[in-house]
Amino acid sequence: MTHPHRALHLIARPGDGELRDEILELREGTLPDVGDGQLRVAVRYLSIDPAMRVWMTEKKSYWPPVELGAVMRAQAIGEVVESRNPRFPVGAWVTGMIGVQDGVVSDGKGLKAFDPRMLPDPAWALSVFGATGMTAWFGLHDIGKIQPADIVVVSAAAGAVGSAAVQFAKAHGCRVVGIAGGPDKCAYVKDELGADAVVDYKAGGIGKQLSAACPDGIDVYFDNVGGETLDAVLARLRLKSRIVLCGGISQYGAAEVRGPANYLSMISARARMEGFVIIDYMDRMDEAIAGIGKVAARGRLKSKLDVLDGLDNYLEAVRRVLAGKNFGKQLLKI
Amino acid sequence: MTHPHRALHLIARPGDGELRDEILELREGTLPDVGDGQLRVAVRYLSIDPAMRVWMTEKKSYWPPVELGAVMRAQAIGEVVESRNPRFPVGAWVTGMIGVQDGVVSDGKGLKAFDPRMLPDPAWALSVFGATGMTAWFGLHDIGKIQPADIVVVSAAAGAVGSAAVQFAKAHGCRVVGIAGGPDKCAYVKDELGADAVVDYKAGGIGKQLSAACPDGIDVYFDNVGGETLDAVLARLRLKSRIVLCGGISQYGAAEVRGPANYLSMISARARMEGFVIIDYMDRMDEAIAGIGKVAARGRLKSKLDVLDGLDNYLEAVRRVLAGKNFGKQLLKI
Repeated sequence: MTHPHRALHLIARPGDGELRDEILELREGTLPDVGDGQLRVAVRYLSIDPAMRVWMTEKKSYWPPVELGAVMRAQAIGEVVESRNPRFPVGAWVTGMIGVQDGVVSDGKGLKAFDPRMLPDPAWALSVFGATGMTAWFGLHDIGKIQPADIVVVSAAAGAVGSAAVQFAKAHGCRVVGIAGGPDKCAYVKDELGADAVVDYKAGGIGKQLSAACPDGIDVYFDNVGGETLDAVLARLRLKSRIVLCGGISQYGAAEVRGPANYLSMISARARMEGFVIIDYMDRMDEAIAGIGKVAARGRLKSKLDVLDGLDNYLEAVRRVLAGKNFGKQLLKI
Repeated sequence: MTHPHRALHLIARPGDGELRDEILELREGTLPDVGDGQLRVAVRYLSIDPAMRVWMTEKKSYWPPVELGAVMRAQAIGEVVESRNPRFPVGAWVTGMIGVQDGVVSDGKGLKAFDPRMLPDPAWALSVFGATGMTAWFGLHDIGKIQPADIVVVSAAAGAVGSAAVQFAKAHGCRVVGIAGGPDKCAYVKDELGADAVVDYKAGGIGKQLSAACPDGIDVYFDNVGGETLDAVLARLRLKSRIVLCGGISQYGAAEVRGPANYLSMISARARMEGFVIIDYMDRMDEAIAGIGKVAARGRLKSKLDVLDGLDNYLEAVRRVLAGKNFGKQLLKI
């Protein structure tokens, strides 16, 4: 017996600017019954991440470029619907780098089972309890070395990683300033996530807003965006400050990347800027999950999901994330 | 009795670009006899440093801006020619932030005595055994965390700090690549300082040259220049590499600073960029002097001096340093 299967394949590299429809091709086919040791997963949600823009290109990254013709890379969660692998019985939920497709037959390698009953929504396994939450956790604690009372600024604060970072830093006793675009997102960051102050980068005058929000300067900056925002932060560093380089979403589609012109302020501030990649922390996941679990146990952890539906909306979902139009963790429901 | 005295005062801020003569004024007057606890120093050498360009402006730096009307700031060495301070007898040599002048009456605060007979030339107290050498030492060891066999790139390698950094890194067992401008400086860096390879940034194609000199990438970059060179290095980082932000001489007079457009490569390389300021290490000077002394004891430490003569040549000396025309530590002999 076979099972219908749909997958999006990357067939061309994107150039600069907006992603074109032509880079992807929907291919329909079938999946076979599982063999010995295999399982078949019905995908429920795909995680939509800004880094996908990078994976589509030939740029050096922590993941190799997606090969032309291959199924586009994506983290996903799904249910095991057929199994001849005792580690993953039918009905189990799994997460892993499954790809932009509605199902997969796997030997279980790279998949991790989780119990959806432990979460308010199984999709949280792709947000605060997934790579998104891990990224915020290790970025703040391991790279940013946040301390209680530190002044912590988070960009893309209404986004997936950013909203987790705001809440984790608050839970650690920091003074947290979130940067987001537009009054709705800013209100969310302040009222729902609990930031002490917000900066609306779409309102202009980001430097002045930052000065008002952080009159004493900035100890830790969790950077998801780069560009003008990074420069505004660099001009306001405190002594021995730390910049956590998580991403540069404002620059991903740029023909010419804007380097941080104020980087020399790191000399007089004795500041450190450091990049990190969450896959290096896979063997420390339990540590993060324990920490995040403690925050969640206080009952106030928010994880907003922004859900589009169906493979046909995949590119639209990526464009939303790149344009900052998503509000919360962007998912694609399959 | 009084003693003739000449000093250069900063009377205007420099704009962008070349330093104009009009920013400084030579004032002639007299110094009094010393009072109780005081000493009078006859200045012998001034240290000419790229950072002077920054001190002249109102830019935030590790030193406050020089106030308009004040004597321009400079580190200097000189001989005590009159003294009523038992810590600094006549004939002693001292070093300190004495300023761009031919003499000073001081209570000794901020001055440090040294024994010129321990050095091949008293002026070495302003080069490898002064702030210059300390900067190279702590930049490499404390910020760069150099390890034997690391691939270390040093820019402005024929300059004062750079030439010290090349030699200290070699002495530590690193593979060292020096970047300098023109065949003479490159030959000096390779043949005299002992770099394993050199890159001539004036010959163009700095990226290709770097690739040839460091086919396996770069572990530590000691950056004195910023600009295109920094970008070329960022494109060739090894995992867990360290960028020691010491200066950005190529950008000091620029109307618009060029930020490092390749900074996002620090994410996939898990790299760290960190600024430092040598005045933070003043209480660890003995540690560096001991380390540098060991290198010197092998008898191969070079410290090239580039000496101009007289206060009238001060601005010319600063311009030389900013344009990279100096060959070795730039000094002004008084």
